[in-house]
Amino acid sequence: MHATPTKRRRRALALGAALVAAAIAVPAGAEAVGQLALSQHGGAQRHQGDQTRTVQQAIQRAGAKNVILLIGDGMGDSEITIARNYQYGAAGRLPGLDALPLTGSYTTYSVVKDGADKGKPDYVTDSAASGGAWATGTKTYDGAISVDVDGKPQQTLLELAKANGLRTGDVSTAEIQDATPAVQVAHVGARSCYGPDTASCGSDALQNGGLGSISEQLLNARPDVTLGGGSASFQQTAKAGQWQGDTLVSQAQQRGYQVVSDAAGLAGVRAADQSKPLLGLFTPGNFPTRYAPTTATVGGADQAPVTCTANPARLSTGLSLQSLTNKSIQLLDRGRGQSGKGFFLQVEGASIDKQDHAADACGQIGETIDFDEAVQAALAFAKRDGNTLVIATADHAHSSQIVDNTPPTSLSTALRTADGTTMKVSYGTAGAGSSQQHTGTQVRIAAYGPGAANVVGLSDQTDTFSTIRDGLRLSEDVAALSRGARVDVSDRSPQRGERVTFTASRFAGDRQVRVQAGNTDLGTLDLVDGRASLRWKAERGSTTVTFTGVQTGRQATAQVRVR
Amino acid sequence: MHATPTKRRRRALALGAALVAAAIAVPAGAEAVGQLALSQHGGAQRHQGDQTRTVQQAIQRAGAKNVILLIGDGMGDSEITIARNYQYGAAGRLPGLDALPLTGSYTTYSVVKDGADKGKPDYVTDSAASGGAWATGTKTYDGAISVDVDGKPQQTLLELAKANGLRTGDVSTAEIQDATPAVQVAHVGARSCYGPDTASCGSDALQNGGLGSISEQLLNARPDVTLGGGSASFQQTAKAGQWQGDTLVSQAQQRGYQVVSDAAGLAGVRAADQSKPLLGLFTPGNFPTRYAPTTATVGGADQAPVTCTANPARLSTGLSLQSLTNKSIQLLDRGRGQSGKGFFLQVEGASIDKQDHAADACGQIGETIDFDEAVQAALAFAKRDGNTLVIATADHAHSSQIVDNTPPTSLSTALRTADGTTMKVSYGTAGAGSSQQHTGTQVRIAAYGPGAANVVGLSDQTDTFSTIRDGLRLSEDVAALSRGARVDVSDRSPQRGERVTFTASRFAGDRQVRVQAGNTDLGTLDLVDGRASLRWKAERGSTTVTFTGVQTGRQATAQVRVR
Repeated sequence: MHATPTKRRRRALALGAALVAAAIAVPAGAEAVGQLALSQHGGAQRHQGDQTRTVQQAIQRAGAKNVILLIGDGMGDSEITIARNYQYGAAGRLPGLDALPLTGSYTTYSVVKDGADKGKPDYVTDSAASGGAWATGTKTYDGAISVDVDGKPQQTLLELAKANGLRTGDVSTAEIQDATPAVQVAHVGARSCYGPDTASCGSDALQNGGLGSISEQLLNARPDVTLGGGSASFQQTAKAGQWQGDTLVSQAQQRGYQVVSDAAGLAGVRAADQSKPLLGLFTPGNFPTRYAPTTATVGGADQAPVTCTANPARLSTGLSLQSLTNKSIQLLDRGRGQSGKGFFLQVEGASIDKQDHAADACGQIGETIDFDEAVQAALAFAKRDGNTLVIATADHAHSSQIVDNTPPTSLSTALRTADGTTMKVSYGTAGAGSSQQHTGTQVRIAAYGPGAANVVGLSDQTDTFSTIRDGLRLSEDVAALSRGARVDVSDRSPQRGERVTFTASRFAGDRQVRVQAGNTDLGTLDLVDGRASLRWKAERGSTTVTFTGVQTGRQATAQVRVR
Repeated sequence: MHATPTKRRRRALALGAALVAAAIAVPAGAEAVGQLALSQHGGAQRHQGDQTRTVQQAIQRAGAKNVILLIGDGMGDSEITIARNYQYGAAGRLPGLDALPLTGSYTTYSVVKDGADKGKPDYVTDSAASGGAWATGTKTYDGAISVDVDGKPQQTLLELAKANGLRTGDVSTAEIQDATPAVQVAHVGARSCYGPDTASCGSDALQNGGLGSISEQLLNARPDVTLGGGSASFQQTAKAGQWQGDTLVSQAQQRGYQVVSDAAGLAGVRAADQSKPLLGLFTPGNFPTRYAPTTATVGGADQAPVTCTANPARLSTGLSLQSLTNKSIQLLDRGRGQSGKGFFLQVEGASIDKQDHAADACGQIGETIDFDEAVQAALAFAKRDGNTLVIATADHAHSSQIVDNTPPTSLSTALRTADGTTMKVSYGTAGAGSSQQHTGTQVRIAAYGPGAANVVGLSDQTDTFSTIRDGLRLSEDVAALSRGARVDVSDRSPQRGERVTFTASRFAGDRQVRVQAGNTDLGTLDLVDGRASLRWKAERGSTTVTFTGVQTGRQATAQVRVR
């Protein structure tokens, strides 16, 4: 199915000297002045004349109000080319990815966790370590979610954006606990630590004194907007802490989240902020793919070429990655008026990777097209907004390769493309029934907007962290951000038994505060834009109420003396 | 062997707010101010602060005096990463390729030659069709050397550069008849048509009325500098035409070429121009590789990791690709004074591809490093010169992939890298003993100098043709370039039997002229900067001597009347 077959760009290309000069003078984006076949002289060109001015104009001084980071999981150059060839033809353009004006490559390696080689490069990363690299600026080992090679939590862009007063969003077509969305909101040693029931959480589990499972840490991170799959883990029950005995979905609701589970519910959400953050969980696990799966076999590319078909299980259009991206932008952009600050949004197209692992060519193509539509949405907003940096890249490359001949031992599939010809795709890194492997090649990174020039040339995945951090002018010194923390009290001299209200504020660097009255623990509160309030029944004598920022350790106190 | 292990770049990266500001202020290229391990926060970053200004400064208005186009044959992003990891470590830099400031990707597909799909995309190109794409701006079929899908010759950049008065060079580590060097100098339907003895030349053979084999057409193209392998074909004997019965090497010498075959011979060449073009053929076939070969096997990456060793058969340093590049630049740059015009030089690192075909990891790595050294040479010259565009790219991607685990059926090799760890390289597109396949992914294109911005974003291989054509302001209208052609004669009224000299000039659009006195064919002459002279013995009566440009058909005449 070629959902959006494009008319192939064609334009007359000057052949003689005078005409050459004319062609150079044609402004970029001008109408085609003729039709040339691909095999004619100049017929396959993508550019019209010199691009210097276009590229120059695409370079804007760093410093954006908003950043939208879009991750095509497993979307190396090969996966991009396969999707383009299939959907739009070899001479076609992916309307999102190919429209980003500034481009480069980045390295994606992770580091070795243990042993003599600890800290040395591991040439093929997984999604956890690669996500940690851009989310925290710290290289770590495969499987780690935003902890360093020693297991120490590393601050994420989403956490820092929030601490610096920006609004935040985290969107994925995977379970929201999956590595890529998780790296922005959680810190665990094992990426499989999805919920309180997960045995692999080990010392990260709440009941073992850890920060909790990814799902529980997500609730603490409290992005303004969280959209994805993975509702199953939220049916699990907290094993320790303040919400012990409650399901996570109940916990979310009690903590003020708007929890939605379908397109209608999402459509009904008109605002999302720290008071009422949005948690949309639309599937128990990962989203179904756009295209029905194909199965690669040894010799498969010698079979009749396949045309991809729609997956009947696909979610409704209102829950496409493009729709989720548009909705997130709309909610985050509307909200920003409060502080005058912008937003940071991460969007993942997760199943390019997953279908590449499965050697499913149609699967990975459909997900790449879906992802490209999300990029289109981000780019359209950024162009309207004028102050938004859009970055689209991959976390790592993957197995699929376009080949001429059916490989003798690798899995392969033949596809009938938009060109009306056959493309052979090969998967040679694992056998039938096994998971195809990530690969270690550098991958494409492309961008639009203020600071986009930082993707040009060769960078590392950790540079994306600093590009976004510096572009949004985020301070990593969260302790300083809570430095002005204070506590006010509604009545410093209440009568015994009277209810007084303590209001903590300016705990910007923190996400929660722990409250103690004297030595009595009054529990932990979510901070909303650095603020939290507590009603307290005044006790005999003089009491010091202490608010301690959970993330920074910053303390602020108020004293009450009963009259 | 890590010939040039680099000290890993390290610099302190600001952690706090104040320090972040400081980091942003550090100018690009500043000294490292500290040492961080790869696994430390910021330790793997490649950039120092915002790159916007650096990228901005890298953009120069199109219009270069010289262009150096460097082709790493088969050098996709994976091959680049493999070489970097091995030689310099994952966090290292290839001093040539990674120093090119402006980067993008281009598509490399060819088109189908015959049948119902004629002219439609063929998703995996060979080196011939891809070379034709950038050399002529015309997509063609696999195996074609600068003819279009109908077999019609397409003008090449080298031919156009020469016709427009620039100096030209063509350098390769392969046989000079191999596809990549051939696409600039020849037009044949079958890339295997190396010499007059090659049966596959078919109608392209001189004796069959064609333009001749690649070697023979190279002599007609007459670049100022031609350096590579492939001397074997020059031992063959012309089967027809003016040089019938002579070996091609003898023909070259008779036509004024300086023919050299070793480093000493090359070192002795002080100038090369159209009067005395340089033909350096240093091996009968392809150059030996830098590193001794490794053999990938099924399960091979489970063996002890290999350290690449020097190939004892490697040519001397004076014949490295870097040395050939430097020598070519030196000769072409010196020569340009004459016309005030610049030069076009193509340099190919040919055996990245060949060793990838052979599933030889060390082989392909060494060739990539060799190629990178050639890029360094080009870049160093361009920086000194200030008016040279350097473009480095590949003709197509290839099989090799970096994997985590040894694939079950694909060939693989484990390598001990500069990081002191193991990198596994897999070749999954063909079985043992068979040739690994090219792959169809888009590949990296990078550039420096005036017009370099044209490589940013997504382009097609045919855009490289127009980028260079327009950058050098080359007219494709060669007929117009010969429009001013004229013939002068030393004496219009000679005595019978007297020797007169005819001098043709301003045949800029042609490379040869055919001369006729009346109806008598006087042979074909090489034009030197549009000029050719002929001594002729005056005959009785009045004679019209006609010079006809072989490429344009332009005619100019002079009349002589015997006294």
